[in-house]
Amino acid sequence: MGSPKQSPLDEVKLAMASTNELFNTEVFGKRNFAALDQIYTSNARILPPGAAMVAGRESIKKFWSDLIQSMNAKSAVLASIEVLPAGDGLVEIGRATLTAEPPGQAPAQMEVKYVVYWRQEDNRWKWHVDIWNQSA
Amino acid sequence: MGSPKQSPLDEVKLAMASTNELFNTEVFGKRNFAALDQIYTSNARILPPGAAMVAGRESIKKFWSDLIQSMNAKSAVLASIEVLPAGDGLVEIGRATLTAEPPGQAPAQMEVKYVVYWRQEDNRWKWHVDIWNQSA
Repeated sequence: MGSPKQSPLDEVKLAMASTNELFNTEVFGKRNFAALDQIYTSNARILPPGAAMVAGRESIKKFWSDLIQSMNAKSAVLASIEVLPAGDGLVEIGRATLTAEPPGQAPAQMEVKYVVYWRQEDNRWKWHVDIWNQSA
Repeated sequence: MGSPKQSPLDEVKLAMASTNELFNTEVFGKRNFAALDQIYTSNARILPPGAAMVAGRESIKKFWSDLIQSMNAKSAVLASIEVLPAGDGLVEIGRATLTAEPPGQAPAQMEVKYVVYWRQEDNRWKWHVDIWNQSA
C-alpha cells in the first residue's frame, strides 16, 4: 500500500522539473520576475550567448526582464537530457524551446541547449551556473 | 625550507591549467588531435554553438579536427574565471580567445566564455561536459 518508494535522485529530479516549470509558466508565461528568486541562487551566474557573464540574482532578474519584454517572449519549455550528481550539487544537460512574438515580426521559435550547475539554497534546488547556446 | 605547501584545490588548479594548456599548444597549435585523449573523458559531451551536442571522445576528436582545419585555427588561450568544487568533480567558468587564419580571409579573433564540468579519469583531470558561446 502507499506510493512506491522513490530514490533520492528521482526525488531531486522531480524538484528540478518543478523549478524548470516555474521558469516557463511564471517567468516567461506571466512575467512574474519575482519567481526568479526561487529559480536562481543569490550569487548565481548566467553566461548568455552574445553577451558578457551576468553575476548575482538581481542582475539576472534584470537580464531576463529586459530580454523577455523586448522579444515579447511567451514560453521556455525545458527538458533534461542528463543529470549528473556532483557532490552537493548536480550538473544538468538539457534542451529548451523558446517562443516569442516580436512586435512587427513573425512569431519565432528557437531551439537551445544548456548546461546548468544546480545547488540547494533555502531547501530548494536552484540554478547556480547557467549557460546556453543555440542548437542550429 | 622546501617549497610552500599547496592546498589540494591549488594542486587541482595547476592540473587544470596544464590540461587547458594542452588544448592550446597541442590541439590548436600542433594539430595533435591524439592529445584530446588527455583532455576529454572517454564519454565526454560537448555542446557547441550552432550545432547539436556531440557525445563520446572519438566524435569530439572528429569535431575539433574538422573545425580547426576548416578555420585554419591557430590558438585557443583559456583562462579560468571561477573553479567550484563539486563532489568528485569541479565546475569551471572560463573565457577563451580563439585565433584563426581562414584561407582567403583576414585573420580572425573570437572571444568565448565556457563552462566545463571536470572529472578525473586515469589519474588526470579532464573535461567531462564542455559548453561555450560567444561573448559578443
